[in-house]
Amino acid sequence: KKQLLAVAGDGGRKSVEEFRQTVVNTLERKLFYMPSFKIYGGVAGLYDYGPPGCRVKSNVLSFWRQHFVLEENMLEVDCPCVTPEVVLKASGHVDKFTDLMVKDEKTGACHRADHLLKDFCKDKLDKDLSLPPNKVAELKHILAVLDDLSPEVLGAKIKEYGITAPDTKNALSDPYPFNLMFQTSIGPTGVYPGYMRPETAQGIFVNFKDLYYYNGNKLPFAAAQIGQAFRNEISPRQGLLRVREFTLAEIEHFVDPEDKSHPKFADVADLEFFMFPREDQLQGRSAKKTVLGKAISTGTVNNETLGYFIGRVYLFLKNLGIDKDRLRFRQHLPNEMAHYAADCWDAEIESSYGWIECVGIADRSAFDLKAHTNKSGVNLVAHEKFSEPKEVEKLVILPSKKELGLAFKGNQKLVLQALEAMNEAEALEMKASLESKEEVEFKVCTLGKNVTIKKNMVTISVEKKKEHQREFTPSVIEPSFGIGRIIYCLFEHSFYTRPRTADSEQLNVFRFPPLVAPYKCTVFPLVKSLEFDAVAEIIAKSLKEAGITHIIDTTGTSIGKRYARTDEIGVPFAITVDDKASVTIRERDTRKQIRVSIEQVATVVKEVVNGQSTWEDIMWKYPSHAAAAASTDAE
Amino acid sequence: KKQLLAVAGDGGRKSVEEFRQTVVNTLERKLFYMPSFKIYGGVAGLYDYGPPGCRVKSNVLSFWRQHFVLEENMLEVDCPCVTPEVVLKASGHVDKFTDLMVKDEKTGACHRADHLLKDFCKDKLDKDLSLPPNKVAELKHILAVLDDLSPEVLGAKIKEYGITAPDTKNALSDPYPFNLMFQTSIGPTGVYPGYMRPETAQGIFVNFKDLYYYNGNKLPFAAAQIGQAFRNEISPRQGLLRVREFTLAEIEHFVDPEDKSHPKFADVADLEFFMFPREDQLQGRSAKKTVLGKAISTGTVNNETLGYFIGRVYLFLKNLGIDKDRLRFRQHLPNEMAHYAADCWDAEIESSYGWIECVGIADRSAFDLKAHTNKSGVNLVAHEKFSEPKEVEKLVILPSKKELGLAFKGNQKLVLQALEAMNEAEALEMKASLESKEEVEFKVCTLGKNVTIKKNMVTISVEKKKEHQREFTPSVIEPSFGIGRIIYCLFEHSFYTRPRTADSEQLNVFRFPPLVAPYKCTVFPLVKSLEFDAVAEIIAKSLKEAGITHIIDTTGTSIGKRYARTDEIGVPFAITVDDKASVTIRERDTRKQIRVSIEQVATVVKEVVNGQSTWEDIMWKYPSHAAAAASTDAE
Repeated sequence: KKQLLAVAGDGGRKSVEEFRQTVVNTLERKLFYMPSFKIYGGVAGLYDYGPPGCRVKSNVLSFWRQHFVLEENMLEVDCPCVTPEVVLKASGHVDKFTDLMVKDEKTGACHRADHLLKDFCKDKLDKDLSLPPNKVAELKHILAVLDDLSPEVLGAKIKEYGITAPDTKNALSDPYPFNLMFQTSIGPTGVYPGYMRPETAQGIFVNFKDLYYYNGNKLPFAAAQIGQAFRNEISPRQGLLRVREFTLAEIEHFVDPEDKSHPKFADVADLEFFMFPREDQLQGRSAKKTVLGKAISTGTVNNETLGYFIGRVYLFLKNLGIDKDRLRFRQHLPNEMAHYAADCWDAEIESSYGWIECVGIADRSAFDLKAHTNKSGVNLVAHEKFSEPKEVEKLVILPSKKELGLAFKGNQKLVLQALEAMNEAEALEMKASLESKEEVEFKVCTLGKNVTIKKNMVTISVEKKKEHQREFTPSVIEPSFGIGRIIYCLFEHSFYTRPRTADSEQLNVFRFPPLVAPYKCTVFPLVKSLEFDAVAEIIAKSLKEAGITHIIDTTGTSIGKRYARTDEIGVPFAITVDDKASVTIRERDTRKQIRVSIEQVATVVKEVVNGQSTWEDIMWKYPSHAAAAASTDAE
Repeated sequence: KKQLLAVAGDGGRKSVEEFRQTVVNTLERKLFYMPSFKIYGGVAGLYDYGPPGCRVKSNVLSFWRQHFVLEENMLEVDCPCVTPEVVLKASGHVDKFTDLMVKDEKTGACHRADHLLKDFCKDKLDKDLSLPPNKVAELKHILAVLDDLSPEVLGAKIKEYGITAPDTKNALSDPYPFNLMFQTSIGPTGVYPGYMRPETAQGIFVNFKDLYYYNGNKLPFAAAQIGQAFRNEISPRQGLLRVREFTLAEIEHFVDPEDKSHPKFADVADLEFFMFPREDQLQGRSAKKTVLGKAISTGTVNNETLGYFIGRVYLFLKNLGIDKDRLRFRQHLPNEMAHYAADCWDAEIESSYGWIECVGIADRSAFDLKAHTNKSGVNLVAHEKFSEPKEVEKLVILPSKKELGLAFKGNQKLVLQALEAMNEAEALEMKASLESKEEVEFKVCTLGKNVTIKKNMVTISVEKKKEHQREFTPSVIEPSFGIGRIIYCLFEHSFYTRPRTADSEQLNVFRFPPLVAPYKCTVFPLVKSLEFDAVAEIIAKSLKEAGITHIIDTTGTSIGKRYARTDEIGVPFAITVDDKASVTIRERDTRKQIRVSIEQVATVVKEVVNGQSTWEDIMWKYPSHAAAAASTDAE
């Protein structure tokens, strides 16, 4: 039954696109999602979730909260989207959160430079069978290093290959960086710039001090946030996968950099799933099934905490209904990773668009907290109290103000600051030089020149001190979930088409697990009658008490059509009221039916929805309702 | 126990402010909420919810979804915050969503003009006891009509009273309108303006056509949305009550304007609560307890559907823990209501800041759908199919192009359009005149003059036609919930202080009902021991299976301190592990304890949390643990 997407040749590609078209048509027709502001022609990269999509999204978020926040006792926060410039200046977004853009020189239309180059290379490799081997190698190399190209190189390649604007074929400008944040202005004066946050993480970092205190000044702890994030994409593509506004769910797990073990790692150590380490990518091998514990013990994954989250993310995605054979954890290549990151893995899900990064799990070391410490002047650090004081050696630099003043007059202060700012190595070298040579040349950057430091101008010593605690900047391990991307991939993985038969139309079905299904069940009075409607109401009441979401469909259409309708939005169970004392329950994928009494129905549905019983168990316990099954479904 | 806030005189006001300060201190200290971006000095009007606040918020939203969306089968949607200008142009926000602002002429600081005038009047009335009666009347009148004052009148009053900038005492500019929307730009070209939505409602209106179709082309139906909204307030005040970004939960109930009855009105007709109709406000009377059904039958509330929602909102707020004696439904005065609105009621909750509008429930008639129909050209209408075709009379205006051309030459087209644009009354009058006098004077606005229309230039007739359906623009009834305001009022209504005793400190408590409490219970191993920790884990597991949110507190501090900590964030039950076989359960407000076996504990907590039993019932069933109750609590 599985949709095979990794098929070669044109036939294969066509069927992938046909598959996607069928899924997307069903999704838009049933209002799982739709382009926003459609009556005004829509806006690229903005989508609405309609009623069933909204329920799926809210189920995914509830499960996320249960699986991560509640089970791991995380500290959830909820921060605004509007963010003042200073915060995003500190995080680096104001300066570096850019894509390279080219403009159509006649129309002014904007395009992503790397997309145009990528499309050109792919197209050439696909269609130009006469390409000489060295050209093939060149284009493949470009595709491999695309993310690393400087604006100059990108521009040069675009010129060299004669790439023009996609629709108009006009000439293109040189590439230049475009910041992807939506800018705005906070307050009425117009002088206080702000941005719509491009991620939720910064709201957690700036609260570190309060959260650490709230956690009893203890590490490790994790904070979490679910919320909207915004990226003003240059040219949004691929439906729900690359959009201008999206829901992120992010975790920042703060941990002592000297101890990244995890007490619950054993719970996930035996999990086995597809991993794609750096080495295998560089060697041209493919992802392979790996036991998580082994990936830690061999050092493939940097540390246990990172590994623990990889395992938890795997369980999260699998429980949602993501096909585990089309899910892999891919390690970032050196060129993909920020210089400060210790290790980084993406949960990638295969879709009709290829492998999609849906969750990033990064060990970002101390980068973020240090950046905000520097910018705000508030010390975002943790302390480890020693059980007994430790003796440590401490470098003490003691400049003599008097001597420096006599020697450097007005420059005294700058020289003094430069001396105090020396790191340990520099200071020890100076100490040695002064002891052997009485004086030493010393570069004072703020003066732009060297000065001569004499022995009487500074005392450098190493002192032994008793310390009662250690102060350090925690490392942060960040699992970051693109909720919209996960949901889109889930839609594709859950979709199948029931073939047309002699007496029924072709039918689209989403095989959502009850956890994410928009409703757990539907209630259908077989025919319009006050009696059946009353039974339906009794059942609805008992379902409500059992906490089972449901809808009653009292439209008079044939039961077959109503089954089709409920299958198409992925409702796992349908209860048909055809009697005053008992009803049938039909399961969506097997289309098998059982008969249960009205008193039992809520309990039975709850049992199978909550996973205490499987549908097979249930089928054993209750009489099957075989007679009309085929015919009603086929109606 | 109730905090009496409506007290006169300075002593009273002071205690209100003291009360507020205590609540706010507790809230900020326990991280229910805190100023956003605090390490950078914060931004006025932006707040974060910390861990317990986040849980309260998510419980309030879950209950909202259960109480409104699921129980009423509403169609929930989830639309982006970034909104293109055209949508907010149609809705009127681009032109009219403004406050009048004045600038400090020296510093450029901005202030709301009406706030300054209001503060001046209130202060004068409070403090200047020598004011002559005519002056008192004048200032009171200003306060009453403040919302209606034009920029000119406001500016004149500010000048007349010599009002200056609050801090600097500098002169102020004339008032001018400031648009409260955060503006941004969509896409990279910079030529496509957008705004952060000031409300979620527009996302529903623009989707009306799809949602109506999804609902089987049937009315009534309701759509709902929960999401962030943004208002760039000139000078945010009052903590969580007037902020620049907030969560709204909005319902748009679409209904046939000719039938606003509600099939479930009987369910709420007997509810009795404080209502404050327009008449009583104008007569200077106070709000009084009213049976909802009576407010409908006497015509105080415009229609049943509006009344049904007022009842449902009452139940929602009461279940959250809002004190029903400090909740009133106040009808808008004529000057508060938009010209198109049929009726409008605000659920107002009394807080230390006075009566706060927390939910607006408005019958907005057809305004919004008509506005988007006009702007988009997409017909946002509904149809009522007649069971059998109806004969209707239709006016037909048939100008003769030929005769008009001969008579008016180049002006022919404008005259023709003017004739076709006549309404029924005008056309019938012309028909009568032409029949009696052969010709008639007719004003063509687009020409700016009268022309003479003769009998041969136009045929006006009334024809009978069969119609199979009626086309109409639905009315919309909109309950709109300010979630942050509700939560803040809930905090105040739930707060109380347990007085200091000989052996215990003064203690702050939030008496949240289990529905909204951040956790339903805490688990405390009495002393640090592997054995008790293991029991705590077993209990935690059974609580998790029962769906009861909880935290385990294994810090070694005294049990009294841990009770205090859990009371202060409003957790209703605390389980203390002091034995291998049984534990105690303590209720927060009575501080009474019972002893139950480890096997029973989850069931007992679930029973009382879900409201199947009261704590009093439970106290009857299980042995009380009286011995140590007082002492542990006092520790």
